[in-house]
Amino acid sequence: MTLGTVVALAGQVGGAKLAEGLYRLRGRDLAVVVNTGDDYEQLGLAFSPDLDTMIYTLSGNAGEAAAWEPAGESFVLFDTLRSLGGPDRPRVGDKSLAMPILRADGLRNERSLTEITLAICRHLRVKARVLPMSDDAVRTHVVTEDGTLSFQDYFLQLGCEPVVRAFDYVGAQEARIPEPVIDALHAPDLEAVVLCPCNPYHSIRPILAVKGMPELLRKRGAPVIAVTPIVGSRALRGSAAKMMRELGHEVSARGVALEYRGLIDGFVIDGEDEALAESIRSVGIEVAAARTVMRTPGDRVELARAVLDFAGRLRAARARAAEEA
Amino acid sequence: MTLGTVVALAGQVGGAKLAEGLYRLRGRDLAVVVNTGDDYEQLGLAFSPDLDTMIYTLSGNAGEAAAWEPAGESFVLFDTLRSLGGPDRPRVGDKSLAMPILRADGLRNERSLTEITLAICRHLRVKARVLPMSDDAVRTHVVTEDGTLSFQDYFLQLGCEPVVRAFDYVGAQEARIPEPVIDALHAPDLEAVVLCPCNPYHSIRPILAVKGMPELLRKRGAPVIAVTPIVGSRALRGSAAKMMRELGHEVSARGVALEYRGLIDGFVIDGEDEALAESIRSVGIEVAAARTVMRTPGDRVELARAVLDFAGRLRAARARAAEEA
Repeated sequence: MTLGTVVALAGQVGGAKLAEGLYRLRGRDLAVVVNTGDDYEQLGLAFSPDLDTMIYTLSGNAGEAAAWEPAGESFVLFDTLRSLGGPDRPRVGDKSLAMPILRADGLRNERSLTEITLAICRHLRVKARVLPMSDDAVRTHVVTEDGTLSFQDYFLQLGCEPVVRAFDYVGAQEARIPEPVIDALHAPDLEAVVLCPCNPYHSIRPILAVKGMPELLRKRGAPVIAVTPIVGSRALRGSAAKMMRELGHEVSARGVALEYRGLIDGFVIDGEDEALAESIRSVGIEVAAARTVMRTPGDRVELARAVLDFAGRLRAARARAAEEA
Repeated sequence: MTLGTVVALAGQVGGAKLAEGLYRLRGRDLAVVVNTGDDYEQLGLAFSPDLDTMIYTLSGNAGEAAAWEPAGESFVLFDTLRSLGGPDRPRVGDKSLAMPILRADGLRNERSLTEITLAICRHLRVKARVLPMSDDAVRTHVVTEDGTLSFQDYFLQLGCEPVVRAFDYVGAQEARIPEPVIDALHAPDLEAVVLCPCNPYHSIRPILAVKGMPELLRKRGAPVIAVTPIVGSRALRGSAAKMMRELGHEVSARGVALEYRGLIDGFVIDGEDEALAESIRSVGIEVAAARTVMRTPGDRVELARAVLDFAGRLRAARARAAEEA
């Protein structure tokens, strides 16, 4: 199989795990476009939860149990802040405050989020390109039965309780795609575009909502492949199943595949869900089965390999079809 | 002796120590006007070293050996910042970063430095009024043989090495005195104004440089008393002696008294320096001797009591003089 550039779209821990598997296989030929729809400001610091999770994971600093923060976290500063009248939550650790401080300072000094992120990655010797989906603010709002909320309030303050009616990606249609994302997706050796296994509504959709993104993802003709975040009827992480149910969608891997219909060429389901393969194929999406639950570092690489092999098969089939035509 | 309002002017550790002694004696009837000429911004955080030292000390949180930071400090966040490309110095601890974060956030939200400081003190149950000398920016610049530097650069980057020619308190003549400082100095029961033992040039002078401050300090007619930061030819803290020498001033307690000539009614020298008393009295400044080196918490209270007793004697003498006239 030819080694080429791989572009992954990701958010959350699930996205970071598969990205890490891809990174082990492709190194600097991986570009990860990361959701920034959950970004928020608190105490003047610039929090980008999905960027941080990705960087901790790819740099080998993520905690074992809590991959959204560095291993061995302490909470001295946060607890001091609270004792002085600071906020009660989210309880952010001492190490975890470093990137939000540097990011806020960089942004105030008119550096772009992309530039700041790449500089941090350089310091941590992460060779993959970790790229925000946009340098312009896009904010995921959750339209619920109790009103419209920022994702941060929905998640942190209300524990994802209110019933979801819709999502709104505020600013997405005015947001520009950063140059390095455009460059990665124009790579002559683009091998695959991978939608990582994470919540479709607040991890992948915000990325796809950025103006021109779906067209750009398909521009080079490399296979676009999504990996299911749902196995059986369980969400691997987060509240995807709850949201699908409340939105009136089918709560299954097939339901996720349908979310990406028209964009993806292939969909990776869990071996456990092979019974769904035919009905997904019937809407024109190729299907591969793999072990999608990543418990060990080895699992991440294995799933990444399965995804890239699948992409290889799709490219080969397409080449054969072109020859025959 | 009547208990009344005491107003102290202070900076640095020496200033905080005497302020603590006064606080033990006067509680909420103490107002401390703190130097903000050393304030600086780094990574978008608002550092006020003298305010922080004062608050740690009065709240009982100051370290034993390093009173400018809370006891039991750790450096997790600072070290993480550095690993991500953040600054090398000053190495600020996890607890010590809390106030600069809250302060910067408050200032960005258009709260005054006074308001922010008082809110922090309330949370820490500090009953004395800790008051910045101004809510407007005043910055101490050090004019040296190697050029003019911010105090921060002179102190942190250059270790106070360059030879000092003069000091400049940039912004002082446009700075306004905050209302609570004016209120404290108008207290009908004002008992004494105390210039704490700290560097005259970058701790007390910046406060005196704020427009209208010297007049305000003397307005109620309460005795204005300074306490020497110099014993023998040693500076108790910092580099006062070095600076006095370079400025061509007499390096002694008497030299400090002369710095405040025209403003102070009385000067407290160390028992060790009693030989200087007469020559200080000869310029019209009353003198008392006390143990000015504060090694224990008890020393702080003892010195505070000596200062207030001295003020009481000056008030009584003045009352007698008025009766006789």
